[in-house]
Amino acid sequence: MTRSCVTALMLIGLMVGSWLSDAHAAVGREKLLTEPGVYGTFAVFALDEAWVKQDPAMRIVNLTSLKGVVEQHREHVAIDLYLLRGLSDHADLMFRIHAAELRETQEFLLDLKSSQFGKHLKRVGIMHGLTKQPNYVPEFPDQMKADLQAISEPGQNPYAIVIPIRKSAEWWGLDQEKRAAMMQEHTAATLPYLKTVKRKLYHSSGLDDLDFITYFETSKLEDFHSLVLSLEKVREFRYTRRFGHPTILGTMKSLDEVVELLAQ
Amino acid sequence: MTRSCVTALMLIGLMVGSWLSDAHAAVGREKLLTEPGVYGTFAVFALDEAWVKQDPAMRIVNLTSLKGVVEQHREHVAIDLYLLRGLSDHADLMFRIHAAELRETQEFLLDLKSSQFGKHLKRVGIMHGLTKQPNYVPEFPDQMKADLQAISEPGQNPYAIVIPIRKSAEWWGLDQEKRAAMMQEHTAATLPYLKTVKRKLYHSSGLDDLDFITYFETSKLEDFHSLVLSLEKVREFRYTRRFGHPTILGTMKSLDEVVELLAQ
Amino acid sequence: MTRSCVTALMLIGLMVGSWLSDAHAAVGREKLLTEPGVYGTFAVFALDEAWVKQDPAMRIVNLTSLKGVVEQHREHVAIDLYLLRGLSDHADLMFRIHAAELRETQEFLLDLKSSQFGKHLKRVGIMHGLTKQPNYVPEFPDQMKADLQAISEPGQNPYAIVIPIRKSAEWWGLDQEKRAAMMQEHTAATLPYLKTVKRKLYHSSGLDDLDFITYFETSKLEDFHSLVLSLEKVREFRYTRRFGHPTILGTMKSLDEVVELLAQ
Amino acid sequence: MTRSCVTALMLIGLMVGSWLSDAHAAVGREKLLTEPGVYGTFAVFALDEAWVKQDPAMRIVNLTSLKGVVEQHREHVAIDLYLLRGLSDHADLMFRIHAAELRETQEFLLDLKSSQFGKHLKRVGIMHGLTKQPNYVPEFPDQMKADLQAISEPGQNPYAIVIPIRKSAEWWGLDQEKRAAMMQEHTAATLPYLKTVKRKLYHSSGLDDLDFITYFETSKLEDFHSLVLSLEKVREFRYTRRFGHPTILGTMKSLDEVVELLAQ
Amino acid sequence: MTRSCVTALMLIGLMVGSWLSDAHAAVGREKLLTEPGVYGTFAVFALDEAWVKQDPAMRIVNLTSLKGVVEQHREHVAIDLYLLRGLSDHADLMFRIHAAELRETQEFLLDLKSSQFGKHLKRVGIMHGLTKQPNYVPEFPDQMKADLQAISEPGQNPYAIVIPIRKSAEWWGLDQEKRAAMMQEHTAATLPYLKTVKRKLYHSSGLDDLDFITYFETSKLEDFHSLVLSLEKVREFRYTRRFGHPTILGTMKSLDEVVELLAQ
Repeated sequence: MTRSCVTALMLIGLMVGSWLSDAHAAVGREKLLTEPGVYGTFAVFALDEAWVKQDPAMRIVNLTSLKGVVEQHREHVAIDLYLLRGLSDHADLMFRIHAAELRETQEFLLDLKSSQFGKHLKRVGIMHGLTKQPNYVPEFPDQMKADLQAISEPGQNPYAIVIPIRKSAEWWGLDQEKRAAMMQEHTAATLPYLKTVKRKLYHSSGLDDLDFITYFETSKLEDFHSLVLSLEKVREFRYTRRFGHPTILGTMKSLDEVVELLAQ
Repeated sequence: MTRSCVTALMLIGLMVGSWLSDAHAAVGREKLLTEPGVYGTFAVFALDEAWVKQDPAMRIVNLTSLKGVVEQHREHVAIDLYLLRGLSDHADLMFRIHAAELRETQEFLLDLKSSQFGKHLKRVGIMHGLTKQPNYVPEFPDQMKADLQAISEPGQNPYAIVIPIRKSAEWWGLDQEKRAAMMQEHTAATLPYLKTVKRKLYHSSGLDDLDFITYFETSKLEDFHSLVLSLEKVREFRYTRRFGHPTILGTMKSLDEVVELLAQ
Repeated sequence: MTRSCVTALMLIGLMVGSWLSDAHAAVGREKLLTEPGVYGTFAVFALDEAWVKQDPAMRIVNLTSLKGVVEQHREHVAIDLYLLRGLSDHADLMFRIHAAELRETQEFLLDLKSSQFGKHLKRVGIMHGLTKQPNYVPEFPDQMKADLQAISEPGQNPYAIVIPIRKSAEWWGLDQEKRAAMMQEHTAATLPYLKTVKRKLYHSSGLDDLDFITYFETSKLEDFHSLVLSLEKVREFRYTRRFGHPTILGTMKSLDEVVELLAQ
Repeated sequence: MTRSCVTALMLIGLMVGSWLSDAHAAVGREKLLTEPGVYGTFAVFALDEAWVKQDPAMRIVNLTSLKGVVEQHREHVAIDLYLLRGLSDHADLMFRIHAAELRETQEFLLDLKSSQFGKHLKRVGIMHGLTKQPNYVPEFPDQMKADLQAISEPGQNPYAIVIPIRKSAEWWGLDQEKRAAMMQEHTAATLPYLKTVKRKLYHSSGLDDLDFITYFETSKLEDFHSLVLSLEKVREFRYTRRFGHPTILGTMKSLDEVVELLAQ
Repeated sequence: MTRSCVTALMLIGLMVGSWLSDAHAAVGREKLLTEPGVYGTFAVFALDEAWVKQDPAMRIVNLTSLKGVVEQHREHVAIDLYLLRGLSDHADLMFRIHAAELRETQEFLLDLKSSQFGKHLKRVGIMHGLTKQPNYVPEFPDQMKADLQAISEPGQNPYAIVIPIRKSAEWWGLDQEKRAAMMQEHTAATLPYLKTVKRKLYHSSGLDDLDFITYFETSKLEDFHSLVLSLEKVREFRYTRRFGHPTILGTMKSLDEVVELLAQ
């Protein structure tokens, strides 16, 4: 990328940024990322073949439209970006979007698709889920509840992994007590990894061909692997009909980092 | 969209509208949407890559042809539109078509495909079902029958969800009494959501690789999620071989709203 | 379509028709459609995207080549056409071809593909089966045999449905007596629909990833649906590993009707 | 095809043929087709959409390159051609290649792909297997061994069918004696068809997602169908996890026949 | 390829090579290929249709960019190349990349994709795994441990095979002792092939829709087939839910060999 292009990008950043009350957006984002009753959408895209063939100046025009759309919607929805290229099949980018209503997510994605940048995006897949109060935790022993308060420290430049899950009909047919006992065993298996692997759960039944979307962040990928291995060994895993398909693996990036990477 | 384009769209609306006896169409529509023995078709489309690349004037010419085809067939078939873009995989639009004969639905879809607009439509999938008198309700307790009379109020701007279902051979092999008992349990699980989630059932055996198409409308998506979760917990769910694949999620739109959205 | 085009089509019809002894073809066709030991092929096609974009005159040139190829092979193979567009996924046309040898079917399809029209055909799928003497009927009670003599009256403009079937290894492992008993139950379930739903069976083991192709014609689609529902309830259905995938639904059309529809 | 084109094709045939010692190739071919320890590859291709659109002269140039590549490799690998168009899904041509080393097969396919003709070939699928001494025959009764010596007479212009097979883990877990008993039953079912259906077995475990590739030649397709039906009825078939997917059906053609057919 | 092109390629080799401390890279490579805690990525690509159509000079420019990217990253990641064309479905090239962090692998693949050569690469699939200390070996008898020390001699020009594996939930639910007993049986089955078939295991749980990636090198493909057949017969194989899908088969090539082959 030439120096003048970088300068152009920086200018764009300044101009777009000035449209917005960043403080206001930050408050909304914090609530969307922590509260129950919020819809989480994972939208995976590939860049089309025309993307790499256009000249660098046009690419920057397109990326400016990406920045514009994201900034414009940031007051209503919380948007995170992930670079999948080189780590996941057939995909380049993932947007994770949190919103109070899926309608707002749809509006963001409609605007994204209509933007100059969106013309180069090919849809790879989309999944939706809902954040909820924990189902089984209230029945767990006090020590386990206390352990679960531990705050994870995923470190710098974390990897993100998304694993969709569908349980079997047998699982849902078990009574709440039996499921709670197995979920306690499941949770015990996760305790050693609470500090290095951050987890977030979305409930999807009816919104998608899934029951859950599990989302992970870590800078120690080996710990994440060990965590999954532990989860495969508990009884609850036998009631899992789909685990992955796809497993989505990428690296978290800021909007600016994505813009810079794609400008090349 | 420029102001002159908007004006053009409005003019088109007036002209197309004048071809038709709206009152007549409304009567037919009401019957098609409420009576048994009606065929329901869910036709899902994506817009091709050329769509976004044409100039706005041409896009409006194309959308006029969409309006024309829909208006022309509205006397015979009931047509509802849904915006899937941003919520469902690989799809932009869904038409739900009710007709006394599938032949009439085919004629509408042939004309749609032959229209200027249709040249930009890529087929994603199509499913057919038939409305029928309720199978099991006559055997239900009187209180449950009364409860089922409740009219749903899906509110403004509802979401629509379509979930195709195939039952196992074991299900069909059960005698009517056993199936009725399980369907009563199934129905009991749905009662708390009758007011906020509207449901409609289509029978598909033989018409498609399905036994049922379940259609939902709601403005409270969380209630819909809770409803599906309740249904996963009843015994009847264990006899379900396919649930979704795909789950189709979108927002209901009027023809004019779709035209306006796609004109952009 | 302009009037001059219609005239052109009619002229073409006359000219092509004159190449052939229609009476001779009719005799061969009758035999192919009724006798055992005949190969039935279901070849499903979609029209490519260039089809709708060519000018009407060129479209008629192409359709003339379709007529020519069909007429040319009609002395050897029996060819039926079905319009799938608007009723089946990703498909526009189906050819059902009966021939004494699959080699002759291949020759027809090679010539079709090489024709001007064939350049616009994209292959969607192809299935082959063989007509045979009934397997189980000789063991049925006399009354049932008499009932099966009833001639179906599918009425005007019938729908056609094709459902491929694969049985489980358990089915084939049962002894002939047990299979015959279940097939008698299966056949009993079909008796109420003999008059309105016409059926034809093709045996596919080894010729395709199937055991049977079941073909139906009806002008009462609801009766066909009820028939399939009845068949799902008999014991024999539990030994069915694949039923549909795809289910093909279309309307029967004469060659001239197809030509006229596609000319638009 | 014009007369001058035919002449051109014949000339090409002469020139290409002169590069080679046909006698030498014939000896190698005989060994490769009959001995154990030989690798068999089934490579299935479709012609791209540009193929039919090029002018006839260019098509002949391309076909000359096909002839050249085949002739060039015939001293090292045995190459058979099959026309799949009109009989198998999405495919036009199959090459069956026998070689002492898969490396030699790869070299042939690399040269084929790099040729003028190869630029029009789209890969549909490829499967590899290994010929071996019969596993179970040594344990069969003497009469069965004698019966198996019968030479098949597939007649003129035979059809070829390729069916890939994967056995279940349960099959491999049985002891040799039990498997041999079931294979004897399997073999008995094939005896009535030895004369009209020629069979060849390739072992694929590890080389592909298969355990076996079964290859058949026959000019009596109905006998082949009856053979498969008999094989579905023996106990061993219950241990088959995959049978077909795809089933490949075509007609054997000489290189010259293929060239002539594709020149049109 | 003309002589001048070959010369050009050689010059390119010299120039690119001079950018780098080969000795340093070799040390890093040795560690990455032998130590536990290293991430292995298998990235499979096909060349697009434009590749063969460009003129030879441009092809060499593109291949130079491939060489450049590989050389540039060789200090951080260990890169091996495999030619899949002619042996695997829909694929031409495989890169096996070993890195201390998947982030470094991502950076290499991003640069590869952005290179002139990368513009012609279509992603076919990508899989990740982690090398670890052997799980069960410590519990094996001493003689078996000693046998496992044997160094494999895959010989010249080996074939490489990659088989992804997913175990069933039942497997993971067994206690360590039972799994160890079955793995000892599994290992015993591999002993006869230690010398001619080299094996390497990657652990994938959570990183992909897999539990393991098994990688093999051999110049005796028949031995590899016999090894897999032996492994299918041990009890542990019954707990394997996915074996292959895809099975990737290719030949190892140096960067220079790949460049030369693709330059043609």
